[in-house]
Amino acid sequence: MPGASYDMGLFEFLRRDEFVAREFSETAMISRMIEFEKHLAAALGAVGAVPKSEISAALRKLADFAPDTKLIRECTERDGVPVPELVRQLRAAAGAQFGTGLHLGATSQDLIDTALVLALKNVNAYFLSRLNRLGGAFERLSAEFGDVEVMARTRMQNAEPMLARFRIESWRRPLDSHRKRLESLGPQLERLQFGGPTGDRSRLGSRADDVARILADALGLCEPGHGWHSERDSLAEYASWNSALAGILGKFGQDVALMAQMGEVRLLNAGGSSSMPHKSNPIKAELLVSLARFNATLVSGFHQALVHEQERSGAAWMLEWMVLPQACAVSGASLVGAGSLGDSIAEVGGGSRNGRGGRGCSSGWCCRKPARFRARR
Amino acid sequence: MPGASYDMGLFEFLRRDEFVAREFSETAMISRMIEFEKHLAAALGAVGAVPKSEISAALRKLADFAPDTKLIRECTERDGVPVPELVRQLRAAAGAQFGTGLHLGATSQDLIDTALVLALKNVNAYFLSRLNRLGGAFERLSAEFGDVEVMARTRMQNAEPMLARFRIESWRRPLDSHRKRLESLGPQLERLQFGGPTGDRSRLGSRADDVARILADALGLCEPGHGWHSERDSLAEYASWNSALAGILGKFGQDVALMAQMGEVRLLNAGGSSSMPHKSNPIKAELLVSLARFNATLVSGFHQALVHEQERSGAAWMLEWMVLPQACAVSGASLVGAGSLGDSIAEVGGGSRNGRGGRGCSSGWCCRKPARFRARR
Amino acid sequence: MPGASYDMGLFEFLRRDEFVAREFSETAMISRMIEFEKHLAAALGAVGAVPKSEISAALRKLADFAPDTKLIRECTERDGVPVPELVRQLRAAAGAQFGTGLHLGATSQDLIDTALVLALKNVNAYFLSRLNRLGGAFERLSAEFGDVEVMARTRMQNAEPMLARFRIESWRRPLDSHRKRLESLGPQLERLQFGGPTGDRSRLGSRADDVARILADALGLCEPGHGWHSERDSLAEYASWNSALAGILGKFGQDVALMAQMGEVRLLNAGGSSSMPHKSNPIKAELLVSLARFNATLVSGFHQALVHEQERSGAAWMLEWMVLPQACAVSGASLVGAGSLGDSIAEVGGGSRNGRGGRGCSSGWCCRKPARFRARR
Amino acid sequence: MPGASYDMGLFEFLRRDEFVAREFSETAMISRMIEFEKHLAAALGAVGAVPKSEISAALRKLADFAPDTKLIRECTERDGVPVPELVRQLRAAAGAQFGTGLHLGATSQDLIDTALVLALKNVNAYFLSRLNRLGGAFERLSAEFGDVEVMARTRMQNAEPMLARFRIESWRRPLDSHRKRLESLGPQLERLQFGGPTGDRSRLGSRADDVARILADALGLCEPGHGWHSERDSLAEYASWNSALAGILGKFGQDVALMAQMGEVRLLNAGGSSSMPHKSNPIKAELLVSLARFNATLVSGFHQALVHEQERSGAAWMLEWMVLPQACAVSGASLVGAGSLGDSIAEVGGGSRNGRGGRGCSSGWCCRKPARFRARR
Repeated sequence: MPGASYDMGLFEFLRRDEFVAREFSETAMISRMIEFEKHLAAALGAVGAVPKSEISAALRKLADFAPDTKLIRECTERDGVPVPELVRQLRAAAGAQFGTGLHLGATSQDLIDTALVLALKNVNAYFLSRLNRLGGAFERLSAEFGDVEVMARTRMQNAEPMLARFRIESWRRPLDSHRKRLESLGPQLERLQFGGPTGDRSRLGSRADDVARILADALGLCEPGHGWHSERDSLAEYASWNSALAGILGKFGQDVALMAQMGEVRLLNAGGSSSMPHKSNPIKAELLVSLARFNATLVSGFHQALVHEQERSGAAWMLEWMVLPQACAVSGASLVGAGSLGDSIAEVGGGSRNGRGGRGCSSGWCCRKPARFRARR
Repeated sequence: MPGASYDMGLFEFLRRDEFVAREFSETAMISRMIEFEKHLAAALGAVGAVPKSEISAALRKLADFAPDTKLIRECTERDGVPVPELVRQLRAAAGAQFGTGLHLGATSQDLIDTALVLALKNVNAYFLSRLNRLGGAFERLSAEFGDVEVMARTRMQNAEPMLARFRIESWRRPLDSHRKRLESLGPQLERLQFGGPTGDRSRLGSRADDVARILADALGLCEPGHGWHSERDSLAEYASWNSALAGILGKFGQDVALMAQMGEVRLLNAGGSSSMPHKSNPIKAELLVSLARFNATLVSGFHQALVHEQERSGAAWMLEWMVLPQACAVSGASLVGAGSLGDSIAEVGGGSRNGRGGRGCSSGWCCRKPARFRARR
Repeated sequence: MPGASYDMGLFEFLRRDEFVAREFSETAMISRMIEFEKHLAAALGAVGAVPKSEISAALRKLADFAPDTKLIRECTERDGVPVPELVRQLRAAAGAQFGTGLHLGATSQDLIDTALVLALKNVNAYFLSRLNRLGGAFERLSAEFGDVEVMARTRMQNAEPMLARFRIESWRRPLDSHRKRLESLGPQLERLQFGGPTGDRSRLGSRADDVARILADALGLCEPGHGWHSERDSLAEYASWNSALAGILGKFGQDVALMAQMGEVRLLNAGGSSSMPHKSNPIKAELLVSLARFNATLVSGFHQALVHEQERSGAAWMLEWMVLPQACAVSGASLVGAGSLGDSIAEVGGGSRNGRGGRGCSSGWCCRKPARFRARR
Repeated sequence: MPGASYDMGLFEFLRRDEFVAREFSETAMISRMIEFEKHLAAALGAVGAVPKSEISAALRKLADFAPDTKLIRECTERDGVPVPELVRQLRAAAGAQFGTGLHLGATSQDLIDTALVLALKNVNAYFLSRLNRLGGAFERLSAEFGDVEVMARTRMQNAEPMLARFRIESWRRPLDSHRKRLESLGPQLERLQFGGPTGDRSRLGSRADDVARILADALGLCEPGHGWHSERDSLAEYASWNSALAGILGKFGQDVALMAQMGEVRLLNAGGSSSMPHKSNPIKAELLVSLARFNATLVSGFHQALVHEQERSGAAWMLEWMVLPQACAVSGASLVGAGSLGDSIAEVGGGSRNGRGGRGCSSGWCCRKPARFRARR
């Protein structure tokens, strides 16, 4: 089931974590929608809404169902969602006698929101693992360079010397709080969407909640007891979390970029220049700032999308899709970039990674102070 | 202690809740900063950093201290903060022999952040009370109109009839979750800022944490154990909460505006027109949409402000002040507006506020309704 | 005719240019709406839509009409606009026999948009004068410090030394282009709004365009030949212009803040600290960055407001009012702040304002390099 | 020279015009950078900075140079830009004796900004062609349905009936003004970037401006007389233009979506539903609203990026690349979507596309219409 692919834009990789991006790919999402339909069918059988024998027969036929993704995509241009065509293909594959049982009680947004939530579940596990690793990196930085004296700066001026650990702590602490926020927010997100055409679960009558419970169990999600097609507050909170994550890491990047400018940090694997061989550009530090500002831009779009009108909004919902997948991919890129930046810190102030610290600066930063820097006139 | 005042801009009241705005006024904030200094002085006395007798004498002199706010404001233009001049006035009032004990171990951002946090504490209590009231209003709407059949609409098209309670629930539920979020977020915000010039509390040596504890107690705040001058993640979360609140209420407003357009709701006290006497404009409903979009705009600014550089940023910090007070005032205006809109709903579908429901509609809305579309009860 | 006034929020003056803010005040705007109505009445008389004698009598009665602004404001809460109540008061003052001629062919948005446009005309003249003054300041900076060598920095690293004039030119040139943009954009904004209830000028039949022409002339505005109630593209371009202005000046501020940090500029009247007497904070430079980021935040709101629905949108229009007046006030504050920052530059690199340049740095910036700055361990 | 490709995200095609996206692809951009280097080499030969015979020999060797894009991309991760590795490959291909002449006087941002500007030139020609086509579509709509009476609506309420041409004109006019803006803005963008390492063109001494002139001519661009590495005002204006374009078309989409909801328009090829066969969803109309709101979100990011620090900013520049390519792709998608929506309008009010208008409506929309609401013709 290969999805559509396309040429990468220049620099597009900067804002795109591949793990995260793959979770939102057409391929992965359609595959989850198929799972939804199969588990729904099974649930409908379990509650007796459709004869069990029909279900078993249909599921056997669907066992190696492979969607025609090209056709699905063409129909998506017209329908706005891949679901009508996907359901048509599933029904055809399941066989005429069963077909009507498929998708019973569901609507397109049920499938897509649930597939989204399943993607977020994977993305969050990845984020937590990255956050833990990054927390460890900050602890190592603190252990290695924490006792080095650096100049504290407030409002862009020298304040007073302080130990580097205070600056490193100001990078680590918010990350730690933010990890806890995700641990408490994640489960609120990971819930089944199942409301049916109008969101009120009326199509399946009194069996609806049972179907929802069985379906949620099968998918490893919570069952909130109602559809939430137009209730997007948890997703908005999540978009904000993503933006704030990039912001927290942007502060780390900004500090390192300033330290690099002042010659107060030495970075391994810094960027080379096409015209000035002496340069050692703090690329990753700058990137963290860019990613922070980009996610701070995107977060506004998700909050605009809170104004879902009526029972299901096309306009607000599509806006979510323009924002959220890339906001998550940006967070992923921030986490990876911050990890890589943290690992590349070889000296802070006069210290050095390999413990030879305590001497004057080995990287010659003070020499970069402009020898030629004087008025010409 | 009168603060500066100025001419209101046209329509400025629309985005400004007076209760909230007052909490952020120059007058209120400076008054809290004075409290901070007095309690700090007492704490310094308690730990023995300054002789207790000196403190008592100074506090007696400061008992009816009234700042020269005009002069403070002039100095703020130069210093960027009111604190240097305020401290100068306080020292002068406290008397020369004590003066140096005042403000000991603190820095301007300690005062201003703490004053901010005290404002937010009041604002949040106000928000919670408004949220409870609004939740009640939605419950009343549901009790009164919940059984009326309305046309569910998805993607701007008639879907199928459903009970009005499902739409009302989609307004109420996110508000309820959002109230819970504030209950858990509030306490994380309500904490003392006390870091001193570089944020590391080094000025007071080993006494710093004791001073902080006593000071926090006196002010009714938590003591986080460290300064957080450049760690703004909780504030960003709070700005997002404000924006999402306006967004949740914007969905309510958008739905009512669309219902008003379709003739499916009748509003008391709707807006009159200067040129078309027959009109009854859903002003409050539109306003909720505007406020949602405005706060969704502002939230981006706060997330941009997460990139505080080094130990204390002027640029990012001032950006916070451009955004947060008005974001809160917008939330307040949304809550008040939503309450007023909820109370003005006199008919939904074929229902009526005074219980005579079930009849044809007096406002002529029903003629536009599909044949199958009628109240069930 | 005193408008409503209120307590200034802490730091609110930072983002508020008083000249600009006054142009958008309730007082100024209502006063322009009254002018609109008087000139409209005269135009109606001129084309014979209302007997001239009636007009003359009415205008005499209105000569010293003073609105009850408190009552207008109360009604605005209900009607969403001040116009219905203002027109009622004007009609009452003009006398019963004339009253119906007042406001004939107009609608509330005609008055408010036209009043807005008149405000922008004044604001733009003010901006142009400030831009010219600032251009001059940059030319002086270039004359005085242009030949001083400074370290060019790219990607936060020393590049190569260059003359300061190249940096100063990078501040001045975009400002010059931006002034030209305003000169060409301004006239497109300064046009009458006159469309009547539905925007099609149908109420006055074939006389509508004549009335519009006379009215536009009297107000010193262009007559675009049609109403533009829901066509907001010129205003969006203007909001973007404002944001880009603050952005251009933010780059100037950011550069100066970094130069201040590196000790490469000396500023007069820099900000003092409450806890560190040696500090000299580049407050105005930081402020320019904050203002740039704040206007870059607001611009999004105006672009969101482009989605005016149908013939006149309340929601999108009110959003404009939440954004545009403060976006202009921010621009004004940026211009004033940049002028003041430019004037405060006393030394660049090793140069000095009073021409003693050419020596090593007189401000001791190099001494601020941390003598105590070394690893403790 | 195949670039990197990847899986499309679900719904990613919605915000991505393929023509526009290709212009920003890695492949297309690197290809333009190679052109830059070749023309620069020729220009260096023409002014005598490098012996002409060397140039000829080198250009012959480069005639079928094919970059190792995979390696370039890997190095981009470290260097932040593809240029250092690209130049290394070019030098290797040109032969050791020439190599040093290549890239002489240029810096990475010179290549990338110039390649960007060449992309924008193509994109703008495409936009102008699309704008012209769309203008024609609105004229046809006006010719066909302009005389149909529709209900004007203001503030979400029935105002008075008016001719449909007034609404169609409110869609067409801003588009026409916006096309003119692009015609005047385009040439300001289409200019060579050539500043060298610090932006002051000092590397080539007195020959720099001649080289720039020859290079600009060869590339079909203006020569502005200076580098503009950190002067991004024209680009910001362009980003705003893109956002406002999507906003103008979003208003069209919003109106059609509301008309579809009220049954006042009939669309061909509307979207089908997976669960409600009777539905005919105005997908393209909703999409225009989403795209407008998404570009209104992105525009803020570009304005944030105006704060380029010093001579060349990595952080602000990378932020531009996160925003601008997709902002243009969104504009392209808006133009295509609007064209497709315009073509799909089969009935407005009581009219019909095939000229049989004036009859009752076949789609049942008219039953919901007010009594006074009928076609005049």
